[in-house]
Order: sequence, then C-alpha cells, then structure tokens
Amino acid sequence: MTRPIVTLTTDFGTSDYFVAAMKGVILSINPEVNIVDITHGVMPHDILDGALTIGQAYKYFPSRTVHVVVVDPGVGTERRPILVASDTHYFVAPDNGVLSSVYDQTEALYVWNIISEHYFRQPVSKTFHGRDIFAPVAAWLTKSWQTASFGEPITDFVRFGIPKPKANGNAIKGIVLRVDQFGNLITNFKPEDVPALLNGGKVTIRAGNATINQVVPTFGSAPAGQPVGIIGSSGYLELAVNKANASRTLGIARGAEVTVELG
Amino acid sequence: MTRPIVTLTTDFGTSDYFVAAMKGVILSINPEVNIVDITHGVMPHDILDGALTIGQAYKYFPSRTVHVVVVDPGVGTERRPILVASDTHYFVAPDNGVLSSVYDQTEALYVWNIISEHYFRQPVSKTFHGRDIFAPVAAWLTKSWQTASFGEPITDFVRFGIPKPKANGNAIKGIVLRVDQFGNLITNFKPEDVPALLNGGKVTIRAGNATINQVVPTFGSAPAGQPVGIIGSSGYLELAVNKANASRTLGIARGAEVTVELG
Amino acid sequence: MTRPIVTLTTDFGTSDYFVAAMKGVILSINPEVNIVDITHGVMPHDILDGALTIGQAYKYFPSRTVHVVVVDPGVGTERRPILVASDTHYFVAPDNGVLSSVYDQTEALYVWNIISEHYFRQPVSKTFHGRDIFAPVAAWLTKSWQTASFGEPITDFVRFGIPKPKANGNAIKGIVLRVDQFGNLITNFKPEDVPALLNGGKVTIRAGNATINQVVPTFGSAPAGQPVGIIGSSGYLELAVNKANASRTLGIARGAEVTVELG
Repeated sequence: MTRPIVTLTTDFGTSDYFVAAMKGVILSINPEVNIVDITHGVMPHDILDGALTIGQAYKYFPSRTVHVVVVDPGVGTERRPILVASDTHYFVAPDNGVLSSVYDQTEALYVWNIISEHYFRQPVSKTFHGRDIFAPVAAWLTKSWQTASFGEPITDFVRFGIPKPKANGNAIKGIVLRVDQFGNLITNFKPEDVPALLNGGKVTIRAGNATINQVVPTFGSAPAGQPVGIIGSSGYLELAVNKANASRTLGIARGAEVTVELG
Repeated sequence: MTRPIVTLTTDFGTSDYFVAAMKGVILSINPEVNIVDITHGVMPHDILDGALTIGQAYKYFPSRTVHVVVVDPGVGTERRPILVASDTHYFVAPDNGVLSSVYDQTEALYVWNIISEHYFRQPVSKTFHGRDIFAPVAAWLTKSWQTASFGEPITDFVRFGIPKPKANGNAIKGIVLRVDQFGNLITNFKPEDVPALLNGGKVTIRAGNATINQVVPTFGSAPAGQPVGIIGSSGYLELAVNKANASRTLGIARGAEVTVELG
Repeated sequence: MTRPIVTLTTDFGTSDYFVAAMKGVILSINPEVNIVDITHGVMPHDILDGALTIGQAYKYFPSRTVHVVVVDPGVGTERRPILVASDTHYFVAPDNGVLSSVYDQTEALYVWNIISEHYFRQPVSKTFHGRDIFAPVAAWLTKSWQTASFGEPITDFVRFGIPKPKANGNAIKGIVLRVDQFGNLITNFKPEDVPALLNGGKVTIRAGNATINQVVPTFGSAPAGQPVGIIGSSGYLELAVNKANASRTLGIARGAEVTVELG
C-alpha cells in the first residue's frame, strides 16, 4: 500500500507557524501521509492567483492525491468549506472560487459542503480554518476515502471565469496573469486564441514598452536582450527575455495589458 | 511502526546548503525519519523570534516528535547543546533560551547537556553545529529513544521570559511580537491580560498612527481599510486590516509599542 | 528496504508550479521516493551558483541518493541531458557544467548522454525539461538502478573550473563566491591556498571598505561590529561580522574582489 499524498497550496508564506501547524495536524491524524508543498507563495488574499496555481499543478500528481488549497480571505465568515472529487483527484478548500481552474479542467465533478464537525479540530478558530478544518478533513479523508461522510452534496458552489483574451477588430486584448520566478510574463493567451502563434504566422505583440514580432521555441534561441514571445510549459503565451527578467525589461507586472495583432 | 518525525526550525533561510546538509545527515543515520520543516525564516540570530516560532508550532505535532531548533549566534562558543524531553515531545537545541516558550507551556521537563561526542558528526565544525551536533543527535535519538545516553541531566538551563504587557494606571502597555505574512501585527496581549477584549467591553487600542476601538471575530467582518483588533489563531491580540497589510497601514513593525486602554 | 531519496536543486523559486510539477511527476512514477529539496533559490540562470550549491550539499546524503540539478538557461537547445554516477551518488542534470564541482570531488565518474525517450514525459516541452526529462529519469532510475539503459556513455561532458585565487607577489587575489543568509561573504580561499589562515600567521585581508587582520575560530568570538575572517563550515574563508551582515557592512556582494596579503 502506497502512502497517501496530501498537497498544500496557500498564501501563508513559510516564515510563520501556519504551514507547520497544518502539517502537524495532518500527521497527528494520519502519520502515513506524504505531505507535498505545492507553494505557500500565492499572493496574499488573491483567490485568482491561487486558482491559477492549483490549476497548473494538480494534474501532475498521482490519482487519489488530496489537494488542500487555502487562500481564504473570508475565513470564519459564511463562506462554506468544501470537499471536491474529480475522476482522479480530491480537493479541500473554501468555497470562494479558488478551485475555478480545476473545475474548468474536470469533467465529472462532485462537490460536498463540509458540515461533519466531528472531523474538525476543536475548538475551531475563527481565523485559521487551514489548521482546524481543511487539514484535518484532508487527513481523515486519507483514512476512509468516504467523501460522502463529510457533508452534503451541493451544486451551487462558487466558480468564476479565468479572464480570457477578447478580440477587438484585428487585435486581441489579453493580460499578464502571473510573473514567474525568472520574470517571464505569463499571459492569458492560449494558442487556440491566436493560432498564428504556433504556425509561424505574422503577429505583433504589444506589452509595456515593447513591440514583439518574434515567437521563438526556446528561451535560448532568443537574441540576447530582445523581448520575445514563447509558448510556455503550461500552454500560455509568455513574454520573455533570454537570460534576463522580462518584467523588469518591459516595465510591467501582473495585470498589465497585452495586445496581439494579426498580420 | 510509524516513521519517526523530526522537525527543523532555523534562521538558515532556504537558499544555502545548510538545511540540506542537516537533512542529509539525518537521513544518513536514520533513513526512516520523516523530516518536516517548521520554518527556516526565523529572523537571523534572533533567539526570541525562534522561541516564539517553536513555541507556537510544536504542539500540533504527534507525541514523540523530535524538534531541532537552531538559532545559534553563539555556535562554537561555551554555550551548551541540550536535549529536552517534555511529557510528549523532544527538543534538540543550543542552550541559549530558544526553548523558553516551550518551557512555559510544559509541566514535566527533563533537560540534558549533550556531551556524548560519539553521536556527533566528526570533525565537529566550530560554525555549524546544526549539521555536526543537533541533526545527528536528533537522528540517533529516533533510533534509540534513550535520552539519558546523550549527556548529563541539568537544571540550570537558560530560560528567558517572553515579554508580557504591563499595566500602567488605566492603560496596559505591550509590544508587537511578530508581523505575519499578511502584515498582521501579533501583539503580546492575551485575553487574560485584558478580559474586555473577549467579552465585548470597551477598549481603545493605540499603535503606530492608529486608534482602534473595534475587536472583531473574523478578518472578513472588519470594514475595508479600517484597522481592527482580533484574537488570532495562536491566542494573541492581533492588529489587522481586512485584505490589507496592517504593518504598512499602521506604519509599525516588530517591537513597536501597543497600548490598550480600558473604558 | 529503505525508500530511495531524490533531491532537487533548481533556480525555480517556490512560488510557481514548477517544483510541484516535478514532484508530482516523480511520485506518479515511483510513489516510494523520498523527495528532499536542497534549494530552489539558486540565482536565476546562474550555472556557477548551481554548481557551488550542489557541490556543497550532495555529500551529506546517503549512498545511492539521486540528485536532480536543474539550472538550465539552454533548455530546449542542443545541450544534452546527462546522467552521472559517482562511486556513491547519482546526478541528473543538463550538460552545461552545473556538476563541475561534483566532478572535482569525485574519483570514479561515469557519464551518460540521456537519449532513451521512452523514459520522458510526453510530449516533451521545449521549456521545462525539469518536468519532462530530468524528473522522470530520476524517478525511473530509482526503480531499476540501471544507469546504462538511459543512454550512451560519454566523456566529453562540459566542465568548468571553479574560480581559484591567484598569487600576485606577496598578495593573493580571490573573489566572493556567494553571500549566505546571514550576509557572510564566502570567498574562494581555502586554507591550502593560504596556510597562514589556519596556523595563526599574520595576514591582511582587504575586501570592500574593510581591512581585516583577525581570523577567528567562531562567529561569537569576534568583537561586535568588527569584520573578521573565519574558516567556514564548507572549508572556505568567510568574511563575517558577529551578529551582523558582512555584505552590508563591507558594502560588497557576490563577485567582489578579496585580497589576502601575507605578513
């Protein structure tokens, strides 16, 4: 029997006791769990950023992995804790839309409002449900795999749309979704939005102070210092500068507008 | 048989080889150990910050967890390495007070000066006892659980008081102990210091540029942009701003004075 | 049977999905692997920094550990992926010199160009071989330990020299290789370069705005605020200031010149 895997995705950072408390709670319930950090560097309170992160990461894990996602500015208020099962993975999170990108990638979807308080750590704090609700529910789930025992099925869970590019005449307007560790600007353009990006057609990309005409296959094939487009590892158009920081070079960050013009 | 757990709490950061060296040493002695990072983000050389961190985190872990705590500005000098057993947990650390908060929360307490050098990694460096003393002692402990074999019992271990608020007429003066990832200001006020904080009595909190009259139960119930008090997840009064960074909004950081006035 | 260990050393940071994707891929192939982060804080695109990091860290791990090292500015270009076996450890990395320090510390050395594409994750992205080549190869290696099945032996792998100090009359010129978490300046001087550093002989060290005459055995034995030399835990001369940040005090960082004068 393989050890169950529980992943953690939060905006807690790694300098406080928050993440450790969640790990301790999980291991106290099921010491066999293999806990894997996805990241604790989600931007504070930023549900979209959390949604993008878990949406990119979860699919690389084995079936039956339990993903705990805590980006939870409404902790302690009326927002519900939920347990989600797809065909292959489980998710435990607040019902605030942080699983929206997961929903977009999942066919069969079962969602429960978590109400079985005997699985909670008592007393339940009003400010740290990661420790008192989400972590213990994930740990208990790895012992029983009985999703239905945690609450009631619901269908009105919160779901928002990941921003998509919009056509405007000959131009398509999108945005920078994230800036990665290297300063690459991850846009919300997918090749299906602009097929010319993949088939070598002519495009002009405008972003910040740059006008980009080149879409290259690898970072290393870009001329030094010159901004280029590249279809990145998660399938989005990225703006990059070979061995340099595109966010700094172009003078833009998350949320900035990106325009792709055809021809 | 469950795998033994060893946690690590240090001020080493995660960019150098320090933490990895400790993990490698532990796994070389006992490959079955489940190593869990509490944090490596303790403020450099800051024994109080380390004491607060391990004091908040250790209790969530299962019995028999071994906690290695290395905030050790005196490494290589006369300060002793110690092994501590409470009813339920073990600690390996320099004897510089970094376990003071643990001591405060523990009834039965057994402390040994670690002197059995055959458990050390040789040669012992004068600048990295985390790797050469604390990590190997923790790993060997998980094999034998024979605390007495590591050294001599002592009772004169170093212990300092976590700063407590002081009454001054109608006002009580405290400080900011930590700033968390969200910018919340963790003060050293506990509800027992100011019962009015919990029972809805009238209080006025002064800190930085703010005068705060509201103590709310959840972050989300605070009006946007307005500083509030809240009893946080670790039992201290925190000063927070809903979805914003209180440290920046109030213009204060760790060590800043906080005054609570009654009535 | 002990669980196999795979370590990860990258410049990916910990805020993106990159590291999690690698972990998910590894656990999907071999769920028994114990994954240990060495660091993801290698300076972006900096092969020398990566080489120094893995060169310092790998030796503390048990025999048969597989070390995955991904600092890979040339990802997707002609540079080869390689598998390296020393007497005791395995390494999976791009062939760009990032294992140079490992080579320097290893007698028996076997290197394969990884060409067996059936071990890769398909389709192989042009920008994320960490996920699609290095992680899966490491995971499959822990199942078979058949190094030869991954590719062809090569001897023309890329190897560069770690910069060494140069004598110049009575002075020896070196550089700062790294700045650690505490601000200590790790130079490229080893005691064998300047035996006087160890035997108490007279030396004058010049770096940034400081002239240093003292080489001390422990950080704590340095007078407060005064820069000193110290032979650090990895065997290099370090410049340090007791309980302060030498990089800030001396006004210098990585790459800065350091001169040691005898007498």
